[in-house]
Amino acid sequence: MRNGRGRVTLPSQKDFLNETKELMERWGADAIRDSDGTKLDDDIKQLDAKIYTTYFVARGHNDFAEKHMEECQQLYLMSQFNTAHNEELKIDFMKGYFEEQLKPDYVHDPKVYWEVIDRTTGKVVDIDNWSVNKQDNSVTITNAIPWHEYTVSFLVYAIWDPTQMYNHITNDWGDTPHDIPFDVRQPNSNKYMKDYLSQWLKENPDTDVVRFTTFFYHFTLVFNNLGKEKFVDWFGYGASVSVAALDAFEKEKGYRLRPEDIVDQGYYNTSFRIPTKAFLDYMDFVQKFVAEEARKLVDIVHESGKEAMMFLGDNWIGTEPYGEYFKNIGLDAVVGSVGGGATLRMIADIPHVRYTEGRFLPYFFPDTFYEGNNPVIEANENWLTARRAILRNPVDRIGYGGYLSLAYKFPDFVSYIESVTDEFREIYDTIHGVEPYSGLKVAILNSWGKLRTWQTHMVAHALWYKQIYSYLGILESLSGADVDVVFISFDDVINNGVPDDVDVIINAGDAGTAFSGGHYWTNEKLVTTIRSWIYNGGGFIGVGEPTAYQHEGHYFQLATALGVDKELGFSLSTDKYFVTPVNEHFITKDSQSFDFGEGMKNIYALSEKTEILEYSDGEVHLASGSFGQGRTVYIAGLPYSEENTRLLMRSLYYAAQKEEAFYRWHSSNIYCEVHVYPAIGKAAIVNNSMEEQTTMIYNGQGKAKEVKLAPSEIRWEVFSDEGEFADRD
Amino acid sequence: MRNGRGRVTLPSQKDFLNETKELMERWGADAIRDSDGTKLDDDIKQLDAKIYTTYFVARGHNDFAEKHMEECQQLYLMSQFNTAHNEELKIDFMKGYFEEQLKPDYVHDPKVYWEVIDRTTGKVVDIDNWSVNKQDNSVTITNAIPWHEYTVSFLVYAIWDPTQMYNHITNDWGDTPHDIPFDVRQPNSNKYMKDYLSQWLKENPDTDVVRFTTFFYHFTLVFNNLGKEKFVDWFGYGASVSVAALDAFEKEKGYRLRPEDIVDQGYYNTSFRIPTKAFLDYMDFVQKFVAEEARKLVDIVHESGKEAMMFLGDNWIGTEPYGEYFKNIGLDAVVGSVGGGATLRMIADIPHVRYTEGRFLPYFFPDTFYEGNNPVIEANENWLTARRAILRNPVDRIGYGGYLSLAYKFPDFVSYIESVTDEFREIYDTIHGVEPYSGLKVAILNSWGKLRTWQTHMVAHALWYKQIYSYLGILESLSGADVDVVFISFDDVINNGVPDDVDVIINAGDAGTAFSGGHYWTNEKLVTTIRSWIYNGGGFIGVGEPTAYQHEGHYFQLATALGVDKELGFSLSTDKYFVTPVNEHFITKDSQSFDFGEGMKNIYALSEKTEILEYSDGEVHLASGSFGQGRTVYIAGLPYSEENTRLLMRSLYYAAQKEEAFYRWHSSNIYCEVHVYPAIGKAAIVNNSMEEQTTMIYNGQGKAKEVKLAPSEIRWEVFSDEGEFADRD
Ligand SMILES: [Mg+2]
Ligand SMILES: [Mg+2]
Ligand SMILES: [Mg+2]
Repeated sequence: MRNGRGRVTLPSQKDFLNETKELMERWGADAIRDSDGTKLDDDIKQLDAKIYTTYFVARGHNDFAEKHMEECQQLYLMSQFNTAHNEELKIDFMKGYFEEQLKPDYVHDPKVYWEVIDRTTGKVVDIDNWSVNKQDNSVTITNAIPWHEYTVSFLVYAIWDPTQMYNHITNDWGDTPHDIPFDVRQPNSNKYMKDYLSQWLKENPDTDVVRFTTFFYHFTLVFNNLGKEKFVDWFGYGASVSVAALDAFEKEKGYRLRPEDIVDQGYYNTSFRIPTKAFLDYMDFVQKFVAEEARKLVDIVHESGKEAMMFLGDNWIGTEPYGEYFKNIGLDAVVGSVGGGATLRMIADIPHVRYTEGRFLPYFFPDTFYEGNNPVIEANENWLTARRAILRNPVDRIGYGGYLSLAYKFPDFVSYIESVTDEFREIYDTIHGVEPYSGLKVAILNSWGKLRTWQTHMVAHALWYKQIYSYLGILESLSGADVDVVFISFDDVINNGVPDDVDVIINAGDAGTAFSGGHYWTNEKLVTTIRSWIYNGGGFIGVGEPTAYQHEGHYFQLATALGVDKELGFSLSTDKYFVTPVNEHFITKDSQSFDFGEGMKNIYALSEKTEILEYSDGEVHLASGSFGQGRTVYIAGLPYSEENTRLLMRSLYYAAQKEEAFYRWHSSNIYCEVHVYPAIGKAAIVNNSMEEQTTMIYNGQGKAKEVKLAPSEIRWEVFSDEGEFADRD
Repeated sequence: MRNGRGRVTLPSQKDFLNETKELMERWGADAIRDSDGTKLDDDIKQLDAKIYTTYFVARGHNDFAEKHMEECQQLYLMSQFNTAHNEELKIDFMKGYFEEQLKPDYVHDPKVYWEVIDRTTGKVVDIDNWSVNKQDNSVTITNAIPWHEYTVSFLVYAIWDPTQMYNHITNDWGDTPHDIPFDVRQPNSNKYMKDYLSQWLKENPDTDVVRFTTFFYHFTLVFNNLGKEKFVDWFGYGASVSVAALDAFEKEKGYRLRPEDIVDQGYYNTSFRIPTKAFLDYMDFVQKFVAEEARKLVDIVHESGKEAMMFLGDNWIGTEPYGEYFKNIGLDAVVGSVGGGATLRMIADIPHVRYTEGRFLPYFFPDTFYEGNNPVIEANENWLTARRAILRNPVDRIGYGGYLSLAYKFPDFVSYIESVTDEFREIYDTIHGVEPYSGLKVAILNSWGKLRTWQTHMVAHALWYKQIYSYLGILESLSGADVDVVFISFDDVINNGVPDDVDVIINAGDAGTAFSGGHYWTNEKLVTTIRSWIYNGGGFIGVGEPTAYQHEGHYFQLATALGVDKELGFSLSTDKYFVTPVNEHFITKDSQSFDFGEGMKNIYALSEKTEILEYSDGEVHLASGSFGQGRTVYIAGLPYSEENTRLLMRSLYYAAQKEEAFYRWHSSNIYCEVHVYPAIGKAAIVNNSMEEQTTMIYNGQGKAKEVKLAPSEIRWEVFSDEGEFADRD
């Protein structure tokens, strides 16, 4: 079935006109884009399609940048830890850093902008007790305390754009000049960005959509002395720091930041760190400024009659799509890379834009498109995980990236994407703007709340890390589930309580991280608000080390409600009697076996009231309990899988005491799901797997029928007001 | 070979004269003891043997105790955590406790001696805001803060001796009266104890050795409402607390203890808790008092011409054999239960007594001595682990306990013990008083130091706990190894530095426990002392979470020296390049595979300098490194086994930079060891396994010979001054 045309963006490249036409036709594409390293020919630009052109704001203009090296972007860095062996300690502070990327800032006085810290005591070393040697990039401390460790926090100029640096090194671009990033906060750069954009818009009349990649400040990506990644934080605000920014911050917020407010013991305020007041202020300051400046560029684009689209990545720092200032930018669209359901929702849920677009995988690059490999598999997996989320909230467009010529060599792939684009349009046309059925509302509770909507537990965008996958599974599971999801912060709860319509709160993460909450759990208001909310009927799910902070006889501060705590060694003398799992439980009804990912050690049940659902290796990994009128569930970890999605869903409906609602629009087979759209009387029954599945499907009234679904199938059903399925037409 | 007679104690019982004689002869016993539940007949007491008689000081005299219930022993207990739902909260503080054991103390004013604590804030509730109802054992708080959690710390009388209670319940003793423990600190009890002892000594002329079981205060053992163990701490000082003790403490130390100083959030200052100043003061206060009072009893025993022996267990609290006051007690001997090498050394190393005795396993009880079971296996295992330690420092005597009549029914067992007793005497006669060869000196560093010599990481004496076995293995390995072992505390290091003769320091334990050290690792003096000591050539081995305390950019405060740290989530953004184990290393030369027990998650190498020895599951579990002139080793966990003993020995010799010394008196086969006694020119080659073993044995000069050893064999070798083995005569 061909669903016509539209909502699809095709990458193209030089000398590829006819094939581009053919694929446009087959995939129904109505937009064409360039990609990193590809430029579009004029004849392609004349095709019946919107033309997206990638636009770099703060790099790619070395003619300008080289003349204004003092307007280069900056970073605060921390040296390695150095042990004093006597009273004099010389620190080679650039040791381990990539000199092609980073150059110490000697323009501004180190005594004003740098900090030497005694890391044994945490005290700042008096500026009279250290000096800088600019010849060999060293700091020498006099009056050091022997055997203390010291670090230097220092400002550098970032003289190479990290994305271009990565591509340059990875692809061995040899003599290609290094893109120098310049800073919108500086007068010449600020003017240049606008002037050049105006000029560029005139020179690119065929461009319909300016695809900003992105605005001003790149996420933190620092290389080491061997030219390899040393530090990467997709949320890092490092590159937005500069002397000018620090001065402006002081003016705006009324106090001065210390280098340590940015350097943060070398952790650089990653999103795993519980944000300090100073860092939150700094983020706010940057967001406001970025929105203002980005707005000016967007206005210029709009004045030229074109659309402004932002790529969610690269120089996106400060744009914060879920932040307070994002709406001020006035963008038409956001496009981002879709790694699965959670990243799709991260894009699709962005407010204040006319449309969103997901760039699907695989990227048309030789690492996937090589002889002997079947790129259909990756595409199919990507589509199945994204489709779950699309069925909850569709992006408005999908697209691809890379070398179209590569994809073209794989006819099965071309044909598979043809079916995907059709399926996408059918879904979109059916459910766009229609609210999907939700059985309950869940709030993810952490230090960040709304700002990190669908962005929790991430380091570098969508990469696998040992310490995160057992938590990221929660988001991935939720992204395509029949529940509403909101993200709330501890401060939200402290200031405003738990939102009225929330059924279940999830607190998930390793102890001490921003996601678990660390010292927040000694906040009396937070603890009592959540505790009373549960007691009065709320549902609470803790994953990993929820509410963890050793204080007054508990490690989990909501241990009494959760019915479990973690043994740190202090309560070994107290007998742990409760080790026997219950025979049967709503939560585990579909579980054959369990995969808690990294799991959690030494969790034990506090009393006979705790319903132990899984106990092995002398530990509880899954438990539920009641607290007053409310219910709680503990899960040791939840990597993404169909099994764990089902486990989480059952946990949510159990915690919310809506077990019967769980069986509304229910699939007995965990590889299948039912997405329901009451307003249009339609339901989509999906097979999320690449094998044929048979399942009982329960309609909204408790009636069931057996359905056999082809691999990856989506089947639309019409149902009557009484919830009866009609036959499929 | 029969080594004659002596150094062996036999339990006996009623109506068992002839068999006792026979076993005395076969085992060469020169002492006979009674056991719990057995009494000796007069004719047995006339045998040619010393007679040990168990003597209870503070229980077993209900005629007296019932008349002086106000002199009953006391305990501080903490109620469960109770959540306030409104401003009034009624707490059933005895909930979960065993009313046959514990009775609230209403004699002394609760408003003076009890404490109600808001566990959400840690604040003490004003005494005006709560009241006690003695009828139903409840405390009612008025002006409670809704949704805060509250506990009551309250004094009880302990009306049933815990050991008798345990035996009573376990063996279903029915109407047998409950032994009431009375308190030496009370005037009548104090007098009664002395008077009764004097009288008893007169009435028991055949007793040669008064076996105190033990003195005044039982280790903490509290039962729950179902009559089962609820809290057990072999080191717990709970039962030494009383109103009288609190008052005396104030007089002696100049300040008053709070109930919380004892209750400790419900953790009751177990030895896993980093001891507070107040608790250390309290321990000191109790030790001094116990030593004074015990001395009086010992003096009475001595005046009667008998010996005073103390059982290391039961009412041993305050005796602290490695404490400052122990020598003042003036005991002749200590006897304790031998669970393996570490517990043997715990007994054998006790100073200030004329002799020590180990009570070996199995105990002659029906749980081992039943038809179809072979008690030789347990005895053999017990003997092999203990023998390693005996070869380092022998106890002066060995013995057994329980029902001799049971053992008598197992002729193979009788015959095996015959060989054990002979072997023990041969070892003792050969090496007693002879210093064994040590290749190096190791210091175990924790919060307790010398006081907990061979007593670290224990909960209930010698029981297996999931959270301790990975650390106890260190002690067990060391107990029979050719190294000197000392136990030093953080305060020792802070005040006096590292002792001159120490080659290697071991810091082992879970983060935050007294054994790892918690906040001690922010102590500037401690950190710099150890750091400089390593840098100048010291060896440091960290096991589990050594030096762990999140502070200024490190979790392991000696991370820079150790070359590893633990990822808590804060440094995920920093690339971890170092994941490749070295090809070959001195430490792992005998390792086929690894068993780190509970292991440790998320350990990573800090730099290319770290020698990774084992890397799996994306984590480092074994690594070594150098720091200045010194060396460090990290081990994730070390449960006891022959493999891990070898791993630890190699780690020690590597850290000490004495690799060549490791091969002195070396066995190539890990199941065999060589114990050397230079002063007498003898060596014992032992097979620690129950299978035949072949091994190369290296003498002190690097020469080797192949040796085949029978299962469990010990073979004595004579060697010349040049270190040549002579033939065995
Ligand atoms: Mg459903
Ligand atoms: Mg006699
Ligand atoms: Mg040796």
